[in-house]
Amino acid sequence: MDIFSKIILDKDKNKPIYIQLYNEIRNMIDKDILNSNGKLPSIRELSKLLRINSSTVVNAYRLLEEEGYVYKKLGSGTYVNKIYPQKKDQNNDISLDILYDFTNITSNSDLFPVNDFKRLMNKVVDRDGGIAFDYQDSKGYLPLRNAIVCYLEELGIQVPLESIQIISGAQQGIDIISKTIVDYGDTVITESPTYSGALYSFKSRSAKIVEIPVDRDGIDLINLEQKIKILRPKIIYVMPIYQNPTGFSYSEETKISILKLAEKYDAYIIEDDYISDIIFNNQRLKPLKSLDENNRVIYLKSFSKSFMPGIRLGFAILPISLQHKFLLGKQFSDISTSGFIQRVFALYLKEGLWKDHIQKISNIYNDKYNLTKEYIKKYKPVYLRYYRPSGGFNFWFSLPDGYSSQRLESYLKNNKILIYSGSRFYNDIYDIEYFRINIASINKTNLEKGIIRLFELIDQFIKDEKNRIINSSINNIGL
Amino acid sequence: MDIFSKIILDKDKNKPIYIQLYNEIRNMIDKDILNSNGKLPSIRELSKLLRINSSTVVNAYRLLEEEGYVYKKLGSGTYVNKIYPQKKDQNNDISLDILYDFTNITSNSDLFPVNDFKRLMNKVVDRDGGIAFDYQDSKGYLPLRNAIVCYLEELGIQVPLESIQIISGAQQGIDIISKTIVDYGDTVITESPTYSGALYSFKSRSAKIVEIPVDRDGIDLINLEQKIKILRPKIIYVMPIYQNPTGFSYSEETKISILKLAEKYDAYIIEDDYISDIIFNNQRLKPLKSLDENNRVIYLKSFSKSFMPGIRLGFAILPISLQHKFLLGKQFSDISTSGFIQRVFALYLKEGLWKDHIQKISNIYNDKYNLTKEYIKKYKPVYLRYYRPSGGFNFWFSLPDGYSSQRLESYLKNNKILIYSGSRFYNDIYDIEYFRINIASINKTNLEKGIIRLFELIDQFIKDEKNRIINSSINNIGL
Repeated sequence: MDIFSKIILDKDKNKPIYIQLYNEIRNMIDKDILNSNGKLPSIRELSKLLRINSSTVVNAYRLLEEEGYVYKKLGSGTYVNKIYPQKKDQNNDISLDILYDFTNITSNSDLFPVNDFKRLMNKVVDRDGGIAFDYQDSKGYLPLRNAIVCYLEELGIQVPLESIQIISGAQQGIDIISKTIVDYGDTVITESPTYSGALYSFKSRSAKIVEIPVDRDGIDLINLEQKIKILRPKIIYVMPIYQNPTGFSYSEETKISILKLAEKYDAYIIEDDYISDIIFNNQRLKPLKSLDENNRVIYLKSFSKSFMPGIRLGFAILPISLQHKFLLGKQFSDISTSGFIQRVFALYLKEGLWKDHIQKISNIYNDKYNLTKEYIKKYKPVYLRYYRPSGGFNFWFSLPDGYSSQRLESYLKNNKILIYSGSRFYNDIYDIEYFRINIASINKTNLEKGIIRLFELIDQFIKDEKNRIINSSINNIGL
Repeated sequence: MDIFSKIILDKDKNKPIYIQLYNEIRNMIDKDILNSNGKLPSIRELSKLLRINSSTVVNAYRLLEEEGYVYKKLGSGTYVNKIYPQKKDQNNDISLDILYDFTNITSNSDLFPVNDFKRLMNKVVDRDGGIAFDYQDSKGYLPLRNAIVCYLEELGIQVPLESIQIISGAQQGIDIISKTIVDYGDTVITESPTYSGALYSFKSRSAKIVEIPVDRDGIDLINLEQKIKILRPKIIYVMPIYQNPTGFSYSEETKISILKLAEKYDAYIIEDDYISDIIFNNQRLKPLKSLDENNRVIYLKSFSKSFMPGIRLGFAILPISLQHKFLLGKQFSDISTSGFIQRVFALYLKEGLWKDHIQKISNIYNDKYNLTKEYIKKYKPVYLRYYRPSGGFNFWFSLPDGYSSQRLESYLKNNKILIYSGSRFYNDIYDIEYFRINIASINKTNLEKGIIRLFELIDQFIKDEKNRIINSSINNIGL
C-alpha cells in the first residue's frame, strides 16, 4: 500500500481523475513497480487512501482491465497482468463472472480464420495502397459482388450482378428496407417469435406489426393468408432456415406457398439468412430465394455467424424495382461499407478459403448440435418442454404454465448463467414461459457440464417459485 | 483476332455469359496468350465474332478493367495490363476520362498513412487474435473512446467519457439522430446552401425543412430567430467551420448567439465537423461544441476528410439526454462499427501518429488553398462572382444572373471537368447560378492548369449560352 499512497491526483487539472489514476497505475505496471500477479488495493482501501470517490477507483480499474493491464479474480480482487499481448477485452468483463453464456450467438473467436485474414489484409494493402482506404462505391466493391454471384450459384441461387448490394451486416439491410419501403401505418408481418432487431427497425418507421406463429414446418400459412388478405402488408419478414429463436426450418411446401402468397397479394418477403451455409446432418437447406421465380424475395445474408461479426459485412439480393431506392438508402445510412474490408473478403472468397472454413465450422457446430440434443434428452427435467430444432444453435424451451421466463433469466444470471427469456422475441413484451438457449459460444468440453448446471438451477428455480407462491398466498390470507 | 475466335461460350450453362467471357480472357492474360499492352478487339468486333450481345462484351471488359487486367485508352481501345499488383480501381473508371475532378472531397489517396495503418493492423491481430473480429459493444471500443476524450481535450472540448459514441462516419450520425429524435412533421432548420446527405436523412423522416442563409460570419441570426420562434424546430443542423459548400466559418459572436438561441428555444444543434483538425493559415477555429455550456450541441466528427474515408469511422458527442436513445438507434442501424478498425485507430491515436499526420496534410492543404486563391485572382473572368472562403477546400462561385449552373455542370463534364452545380445543396432542387469547386483531390502540380482550363471552359460556356439564347430568340421571332 505504501507505493499507492505516493499517487498524486490533481483535482483541478483538466484531465478526469479516474484517467489520472489509471495513468498512474499503468505507469507503475509499465515500470515494474508493481509485480505481475500482484494484488491491487481493494476499491474501498484505495478510495480511502487517496480520499477520492470509490466510483473513481472503479472506473480506473475498469479501464485498466479493459486494456489488459489487470484482471479480476471473482471474490478475491484485482491483480496485475503483465503477460502482454494477451486477449483481454472489454466485451469479456462480464465473462469473468459468468460461467456459461447461453445467449452469445457468435462462435468462439478462437475459430475465426484470423491468420488467413491477416495475410490477405497485408496483400490488399500492398496491392492497392491508399486506394483500398478511399471512398467505396455505395453499391459495393465490384470484384466482391462478382465473387458473391459465384458463391450464390453454388447455393442454387442465380441472380444478375446488378441485384447484389453490399451492406454492413443484415441488421443494416433490415434497417434500410424499412427506411426505403415502410411508411407510417404500413403493415409488416413477422414470424412469432422473431428477431427483436427486426421488430425495432419496423417500429421505428411506425409500422403496424402483425405476428404469425411459426411451427415445425414454418409459418402458419392459413393464419398468414387470412392476415394478408385483410391487411395487405408491404413486407413479410421471415427466417426460413433454423429460425431464430425456435430453430425450426420451413418445409419445401411452406416455402412454395409463401412465395405464391407474396405474388398473389403483391408483398415482398425479407429472407434473413444468417446460417444456411453451415450444414447440419449433411443436409443443405435451400434458401427461399432459390425458389423465387417472381422476384418477391429480398434476401439478406449476414456473415457474422458463419464468418466473423467484427468485419460488419453482408449483402442483399434485391429485386430490380428496389435496387435504386435501396442504394440511395444505403448511401445516406453510412455512404458505403468499408472498401478495405470488402477487398479483403473478396480475396478470401476468390482464393477458395471459404469452403474450408465452412467445412471446419460445420463440423464443430454439428458436433455441438448433436451433443446438445443428447444431453437435453439425458438431463432435462420432465416438466420442461423442448421444441426439437432442425439444426442450428438455438434451442427453444418452455417452463410449465404460469412460470415466468423473465424471472428465470434473472435467477440464472444471479447464478452466473445467461439465457434469454422468450419475451425478447415478441413485439409486445409480456412475460411468457418460453426461453432460448444458444450454444454457439460454449466450448464442446463445457457443454455437458453447462447443460447439467442449467437444468439443476432451473429445478431449483421451480422449487423456489413454488415456495414463493405458497408464501405469498399465505401472506395474502394473513392480510 | 484468331485467338478470340476460339473462345467457347455456353449459353445454356448456369454461369452468366459475360462472366464466362471474362474468365476466358482472364485466362488468356494469365497464361500469357495475350501480350502485355496488346489491344483487345473492339466491342463491336468481339460481339460480332462470338455472336453475342455487345452489352455482354461491355460487361466482361468492365469487369476485366475493374480487376486490373486491362485498361482503356480514350478513343483508342482496351489494352492488356500485365503489371499486377497495381492500382486500378473500380472507382477510377471515370477518372480515365476526366481531366480535373473538382467534386471529389477526399484527399489524394497517396496521402493516406497506409504503412502506419498496416503496421498497426498487424499489431492488433497479433495482440488480440480473434477477439479483434468479434462483436463490438455498440457504444464503441472503450480504449478508442478514451483516446478520443484526450484528443478532444487538445481541441478545447472537455466531455465525459459517457458522452462519446462511436459511429461509422458522420452521415450515420445524422441518420441516427434523424431516426432518434425527428418525427413526422417536425421542423429541422439547416443552413442554406447545405450538405445534401443531411437533407436526405431529415426528409426520410418526413421532417419539414427550413433553410436559413449563411454568409461570411455564419448563419443569418435574425432570420434564424424569427423562424425558431414560430416553428420551434427540434434540430438545427450546421457546419460552423469551413461550411460545405461555401467555405464560410462562423464568427465567435455567431457561435455564442446560436448557442443562446438553442438554449432559449429548447432546440438541439447538430455540429457537423469534417475539417476542424486541418488548420488553415495557422489559425485553429474553435468548434461550437467547445463553447457549449448547456449541452445543446450534438457534435459529429468525421475522419473521412482528415484521415481515410474507407475506414468508415467517426464519433458523436451526445448530451446525456440522448445517449441511450442514440445507442439503441446505433444498435439497430448496424449493431456496431467494426471493432477491428476501432482497435487499429485507437492505437494510431495512442502512439501519437495522429499529430504528425495532421501536420503533414495541413501543410499540403494550406499550400493548395493559398495557391487556389492566387490562381483565382489571376485567372478568374470578371463576370464570375467568387465568395472568398475562410479556409478549406471548397470554393463557391456564381455565374452572372440568368445562367444555369446545371447546364454548366454538364457542359464541363462533356469537356472532362467535374464540378457540382449549386442545385445539389438546396432542399428544393431548382436551377441556380451558384456552383462549387473542390480542390481536395487535385494535385498541386495540376492545380494551375486545372483552374486555367476551368475558367477557359466557363468563358466558352457563357459565349455558347449567349448565342443559344440569341438563336432561340430569332427562332421564336421566326415562328
